[in-house]
Amino acid sequence: MRDVSIIGIGQTKVDEHWGRSLRHLANDAVLAAMQDARIEAADALYVGNMLSGVLTGQEHLGALIADFVGLRGIEAVKVEAACGSGAAALRLAYGAVAGGLHDLVIVCGVEKMTDTTHAETTTGLMMAADADWESVHGLTFVSINALLMRRYMYEYGVKHADFAGFSVNAHRNAVGNPNAMYPNPVTVEQFTQARMIADPINLLDSSGIGDGAAAVVLCPTHSAQEYRSEGAVRIRASSMATDAVAVHDRPDPLWLSAVQVSSFKAYQQAGAGPQDIDLLEVHDAFTIMSAMSLEAAGFALRGKGVWLAKDGEIAREGRLPICTMGGLKARGHPVGATGVYQVAEVVQQLRGQAGPNQIPNARLGMAQNVGGSGATVITHILEAQD
Amino acid sequence: MRDVSIIGIGQTKVDEHWGRSLRHLANDAVLAAMQDARIEAADALYVGNMLSGVLTGQEHLGALIADFVGLRGIEAVKVEAACGSGAAALRLAYGAVAGGLHDLVIVCGVEKMTDTTHAETTTGLMMAADADWESVHGLTFVSINALLMRRYMYEYGVKHADFAGFSVNAHRNAVGNPNAMYPNPVTVEQFTQARMIADPINLLDSSGIGDGAAAVVLCPTHSAQEYRSEGAVRIRASSMATDAVAVHDRPDPLWLSAVQVSSFKAYQQAGAGPQDIDLLEVHDAFTIMSAMSLEAAGFALRGKGVWLAKDGEIAREGRLPICTMGGLKARGHPVGATGVYQVAEVVQQLRGQAGPNQIPNARLGMAQNVGGSGATVITHILEAQD
Repeated sequence: MRDVSIIGIGQTKVDEHWGRSLRHLANDAVLAAMQDARIEAADALYVGNMLSGVLTGQEHLGALIADFVGLRGIEAVKVEAACGSGAAALRLAYGAVAGGLHDLVIVCGVEKMTDTTHAETTTGLMMAADADWESVHGLTFVSINALLMRRYMYEYGVKHADFAGFSVNAHRNAVGNPNAMYPNPVTVEQFTQARMIADPINLLDSSGIGDGAAAVVLCPTHSAQEYRSEGAVRIRASSMATDAVAVHDRPDPLWLSAVQVSSFKAYQQAGAGPQDIDLLEVHDAFTIMSAMSLEAAGFALRGKGVWLAKDGEIAREGRLPICTMGGLKARGHPVGATGVYQVAEVVQQLRGQAGPNQIPNARLGMAQNVGGSGATVITHILEAQD
Repeated sequence: MRDVSIIGIGQTKVDEHWGRSLRHLANDAVLAAMQDARIEAADALYVGNMLSGVLTGQEHLGALIADFVGLRGIEAVKVEAACGSGAAALRLAYGAVAGGLHDLVIVCGVEKMTDTTHAETTTGLMMAADADWESVHGLTFVSINALLMRRYMYEYGVKHADFAGFSVNAHRNAVGNPNAMYPNPVTVEQFTQARMIADPINLLDSSGIGDGAAAVVLCPTHSAQEYRSEGAVRIRASSMATDAVAVHDRPDPLWLSAVQVSSFKAYQQAGAGPQDIDLLEVHDAFTIMSAMSLEAAGFALRGKGVWLAKDGEIAREGRLPICTMGGLKARGHPVGATGVYQVAEVVQQLRGQAGPNQIPNARLGMAQNVGGSGATVITHILEAQD
């Protein structure tokens, strides 16, 4: 199979875009990525999206967006894997280019979550969980994560305040990201005093609901130079794994086995390990997800993920910078778009275009996108290309 | 790229399965396909589905179904392209196997459309159209097709009764298909006297709403013999094309350009033309779609597609048998599953396992799945493997 590179990226600001519909947001991101890649056509468009059906009455986004961005006629589909939809679309596009099905593929993650009621959005997000066994009891995604966080605190003797570092780090990094929804710094004190959402998860444990779109352009590595003389980024690894959707079906609710499998498949493909990763975009939908992901992905021992936040190792200056552009927490989490934002941000870092948030000498970056409470996990490892 | 073969198929009966949920239907089809292919594991599961979010409050079908069928952990995603979702999932799976990303992929199309209100289903189906420019005016999918049919009749001087042959043929073929939802023969007189749905489309122009699941198993052709000594079917061509979603955005509403592009790409890949096709599973969601598809795919001249039905050429004994197991009209149209049913039926024919519906000496079969009113078209050409 062929090596694959990312030759263009585009992002809209994550925000409440009351004046922009889903197709307009997608258009902004795709055209920016095409301009960045210096292309005017493509073989295919893979769209990552979760909620457009229930929230905007629109499916069939492949053909719709392909037409709207000026690419009427090309192969185009929507890929859905809950909050992992964006990276799932990238994963399939990677396979199509690596395997030779296509030479130039655009991946667009897009989600329009505002301009609707909070009830609709909350219900919509629960479609990522098990409808027959979780949603039916009135659980929401916050409360599923609250159950996990409470259990984690009990099992490992951790206090809620110990998670503060994840939120503080994300907000600090969002300040330097013009695409971030919440570019305001927060303090540990603000974190501990934030209003409760679902005990023990409070407002500052939680990523926000927003609208946004991000896009990347893929081509075989050997032809990346035809499009841009520098700044191409090679996909060193791409992997996906799944787990039971319902948390109670997993032998150990505190162990994200799909994170483990997806991460270690990616390490194997990349010929690299956790110690080689210069920055990590982790799926911090809630602070508890960051702690658990860091453990299952091999960056911390079991029950110790939370201490990476406490000790400051995840800061831009630390040993393992995470959420370097604000993460889901502070850049925002337009669910089906998130996985593509993460990858676009890693590309920014590897190109040296992350502005005040630049991680010095970043060579190898990892992005991990999670669907549901850990049932779908997609991992990409990217490398700066000389 | 590698040649790809289908080594297993599974289908549930299309019906109002009030006692079977979406995951149970998928399970039945996937396990049948795995048994048929003599496999107990797979690398990935690609699920084609359109409506599970709005109708059953469940997305994230990749992980959900993978777990439920006993394949917890494997790569799994949902692919959506409106009523073309099933074949779109197959198209991506084909690419993954052809390109070397995977060696054994299961494709499952599944849809659960009953156990809900007709209003929800009708609204849900309109998500295949343009929400901002078509749905907003109160159009339904029947009325969009009614506008096309009325225009077709006006432009080409055709009467409604001239379409009868499509419906009569589909119902005749459904009689011999144990998986068909409507295995009752209908006459030309019953067709012309059926009650009106949206003038000029009546009940017998229209495919029905039902629940169902179908699955196929793909592997590289060179290893098909490892799984089964006979009955493997080679995918000679796989292609997808798109068009404007809204009918009014197309330069000519009576010309399905995505059918044309997708078909001719497929002919090119297969090194075959319309004259070589022994049977065709056409996307007969409405009789007008059959007529227009036959024209754009090169089986009839413009404005002449309807006459194929009139002249009996589409019967099992005719020059171009279509909808050989009942088609969308009479096998039933569980939208996201339909494209996989079509392909499974072509496999039955090429294996010589179509029972009373067997097309003698069938060597080359074509299946064409359409999303929306022609905005996404996926074509597969299959060949009997010696």
